Amino acid sequence: MSEQLTLQDYVAQAAAKVEGALREAVPALWDVPPKLREAMDYSLRAGGKRLRPVLVMAAAEAVRGQEKDAEASLSIACAIELVHTYSLIHDDLPAMDDDDFRRGKPTNHKVFGEAMAILAGDALLTHAFYLVTEGQKHGIDPGVLLSVSSDLARYAGAAGMVGGQAADIMGEQGLTSASELEYIHLHKTSDLIVFSVTAGAKVGGADGKQLDALALYGRNLGLAFQIQDDILDLIGDEAKLGKKTKSDVEQGKVTYPYLIGLDESRSLVEKLTLGAKEAVREAGLASPSRLLGIADYLMRRDH
Amino acid sequence: MSEQLTLQDYVAQAAAKVEGALREAVPALWDVPPKLREAMDYSLRAGGKRLRPVLVMAAAEAVRGQEKDAEASLSIACAIELVHTYSLIHDDLPAMDDDDFRRGKPTNHKVFGEAMAILAGDALLTHAFYLVTEGQKHGIDPGVLLSVSSDLARYAGAAGMVGGQAADIMGEQGLTSASELEYIHLHKTSDLIVFSVTAGAKVGGADGKQLDALALYGRNLGLAFQIQDDILDLIGDEAKLGKKTKSDVEQGKVTYPYLIGLDESRSLVEKLTLGAKEAVREAGLASPSRLLGIADYLMRRDH
Repeated sequence: MSEQLTLQDYVAQAAAKVEGALREAVPALWDVPPKLREAMDYSLRAGGKRLRPVLVMAAAEAVRGQEKDAEASLSIACAIELVHTYSLIHDDLPAMDDDDFRRGKPTNHKVFGEAMAILAGDALLTHAFYLVTEGQKHGIDPGVLLSVSSDLARYAGAAGMVGGQAADIMGEQGLTSASELEYIHLHKTSDLIVFSVTAGAKVGGADGKQLDALALYGRNLGLAFQIQDDILDLIGDEAKLGKKTKSDVEQGKVTYPYLIGLDESRSLVEKLTLGAKEAVREAGLASPSRLLGIADYLMRRDH
Repeated sequence: MSEQLTLQDYVAQAAAKVEGALREAVPALWDVPPKLREAMDYSLRAGGKRLRPVLVMAAAEAVRGQEKDAEASLSIACAIELVHTYSLIHDDLPAMDDDDFRRGKPTNHKVFGEAMAILAGDALLTHAFYLVTEGQKHGIDPGVLLSVSSDLARYAGAAGMVGGQAADIMGEQGLTSASELEYIHLHKTSDLIVFSVTAGAKVGGADGKQLDALALYGRNLGLAFQIQDDILDLIGDEAKLGKKTKSDVEQGKVTYPYLIGLDESRSLVEKLTLGAKEAVREAGLASPSRLLGIADYLMRRDH
């Protein structure tokens, strides 16, 4: 399909495949307490850009230019969306960011209560690792899947996303430098994006050099994405974003625009995006165009 | 080592190996925020019986009578202890059971705050799946490790331990029957024990029939363990238990002694233990003695 579609249609089509697969992510036959299943589904179906799973599929296809690699990577694509979703549920908890709304809907704990929200997050995180093993059904080599599972645990865990979140919490008690802020964003945001592109690329049979280049792409893309988020929080359109703007300022959060100014933040987003595209161009991928397009698309987004 | 030791020494020696391995479970080189690492270590080192990891190792050795299979299973043994530890941290949270003490020490959130306790639990759960993949270093076949990872996700997740915990929460609003209580315990407690013995056995090369027998052993052992816990909460020695007794009564919790009486509960523990041993005896294992001994040991425990 890939080559004939505009980027927007390509992303929409990949995201639709993910939506479909997510609806069946937890097998219907499994004996899950109905309320728990409902709480998991509530946040899984709350939408969002499905950026991470789309990146898994795009990276898988990019390596050899084979659409079947993107198909094979679908359960890993769902896995990373489950991890992302669990992290949002736990981040929104009263003990963490204490948010009442997410994507224009009440947060998980506002609907299901704190205890069930904690458990729904735990269950989504756990199930992500099940979905990685499901890659076997799509013919992915067990050694590759183990490597993907190891990566997921590392990028999502204490030295990855959870570490970034912990640093963020500690930082709220007196964060000042741009390097501290970068540490937080590299882990809170970039790590899952690095995972997404490298895991997809592993399914596509990427070599070490290609994986390094894609890791750099993911790192830059993640940082650019986060800075763009900070910018949109400051000057974005509430209707398009589905959430209130200026929340960072109200909460006294240290952001890139706060630290280095709005113009400097914008040019940093541009610089990081260029770096990401450069890395992909030099990686020797059979079809890099979608990954290049996604980088531009994210830089220009208004929500 | 195995055959010459008394059961108590065998369990102590296996548990000591687990303790040693747990201290290095999260690689020292990894860039983990110090406070997060401290929170993870605090609960990991809080002791406990290390029952689940010992069962992993005992089951691994039982299949072929090979001590090297127990050694190879060590990282999986640590993995299940991380999952157990995370579940205790999250269970103790104010939104869940709201416990201030665990094993005679302040609970994680009392020391590190709720936000860090949630993250420490998330990080431990995530890292458990990393440790499973580490089995490769001990020469375990990637296909076997993937199967173990899939089992761990299933037994610990929405249809397993987390499901049991969710059912428990819902049940507090009006649980009445022994079958509902059994559902909760089968998932809250037995599932991780079933995982432990079957994962160990997979490392030891068990066949399908042996895995079924060990799953039954684990199921019975888990239920017996939980009922014994209920009994000890009612009539145990606070000093030996390291926690206050009669907490179930105070909290109005529905337990086996409450539902079927103390004598009936005791004979149920005995019956389940006999069933567990029967299953192991008929499984055609090369060295079933440790698994048989552990069943008796748990039935007779006073803490």
